[in-house]
Amino acid sequence: MKKPLVSIASVAALALVFVSGAVAQTQKTVKHHIVFELNEPEGAAWDSLVKHVNNVRKALAADGGSQVEVVFWGPGLNMLLKKNTAYEERLKQLIDDGVTLSACQNAMHVMNVKSEDLFPFATQVDSGIAQIVRRQETGWSYIH
Amino acid sequence: MKKPLVSIASVAALALVFVSGAVAQTQKTVKHHIVFELNEPEGAAWDSLVKHVNNVRKALAADGGSQVEVVFWGPGLNMLLKKNTAYEERLKQLIDDGVTLSACQNAMHVMNVKSEDLFPFATQVDSGIAQIVRRQETGWSYIH
Amino acid sequence: MKKPLVSIASVAALALVFVSGAVAQTQKTVKHHIVFELNEPEGAAWDSLVKHVNNVRKALAADGGSQVEVVFWGPGLNMLLKKNTAYEERLKQLIDDGVTLSACQNAMHVMNVKSEDLFPFATQVDSGIAQIVRRQETGWSYIH
Repeated sequence: MKKPLVSIASVAALALVFVSGAVAQTQKTVKHHIVFELNEPEGAAWDSLVKHVNNVRKALAADGGSQVEVVFWGPGLNMLLKKNTAYEERLKQLIDDGVTLSACQNAMHVMNVKSEDLFPFATQVDSGIAQIVRRQETGWSYIH
Repeated sequence: MKKPLVSIASVAALALVFVSGAVAQTQKTVKHHIVFELNEPEGAAWDSLVKHVNNVRKALAADGGSQVEVVFWGPGLNMLLKKNTAYEERLKQLIDDGVTLSACQNAMHVMNVKSEDLFPFATQVDSGIAQIVRRQETGWSYIH
Repeated sequence: MKKPLVSIASVAALALVFVSGAVAQTQKTVKHHIVFELNEPEGAAWDSLVKHVNNVRKALAADGGSQVEVVFWGPGLNMLLKKNTAYEERLKQLIDDGVTLSACQNAMHVMNVKSEDLFPFATQVDSGIAQIVRRQETGWSYIH
């Protein structure tokens, strides 16, 4: 009877070591968490957004790194539309760098935007504002 | 001598149970706390505000609920003026839903707005910005 | 052997008293911490900024006081240019009141602004957004 118990204990111990390692690694690789919002129509704000995300990630790279999510809501949702090819490369690059680009489903509903109208790399959230609230609640910094 | 002590202990124990229950209930009924600010003159921002507050409250209703305060300062104060009848019903509905609508007294002073000029359901705060600061200090999320 | 040990202990105890006193004093003199951002070009936002910082500091003066930093980035950097004499007195007054005025070095680079182009009382930070993030991470309230 003892042998199975020991085995289970060993597996549990290994699992703990594995989990601790994963947590330690996550904490080590990403120190800063930032949620941006984009709720402005096409114009200077769109160009600035990409620049700002890149700049802040660069500034924090040597200080623990950063995890960034951009929430697109209101008229800002348009930036994630597939037909918006002028920004596709820059947005795709953000994704490749680990940035999350979240589309507000409330805005999608109001503007009659379907999932297939969005760039395939976009994430969807029920409510852009609720998402920003949830991020702040877990310690993320907010940049308007 | 022992009896009073026991009684006091019992009362204390009951009080603890009562307080714990109250805290648990508060945490259960309202999980999220959000302070919005409105500091823009009449226009699209006014319509959006009402919509955004309603949307975020709806999105969080099934996830613990939310307590919302909107701070009106700068040119945004005008939205709380009694003569602004076009928005009265929508603002009154927010109040009925438990939302707090706070007028900045600094803005009132600058714009020569008296208490009787405001909708009777408006709350007043000494400084709109100070109020937003105090809310963030106690863990509220901030939405510009 | 005991005498040196006792002396070390005494020094350590004194150091602790000194540190505790300093911490207590800091906590007593400044209760609130606020980071403002200014990223708008010349116009109403510039006048409002000075007014808002003064108003919130006044409102919180009787409630533990406040430490304020304003981060100037994007087109807002121009407000800190030495040639911008129209605002020099008001900005200098903020400095005299203990407010920190921080110029974003990313914006300086993009706009080809040198250190000698800035008012001498301006502080420089590597990235305006990273600075706002760091402030929020240490409990400062954020005002857009």
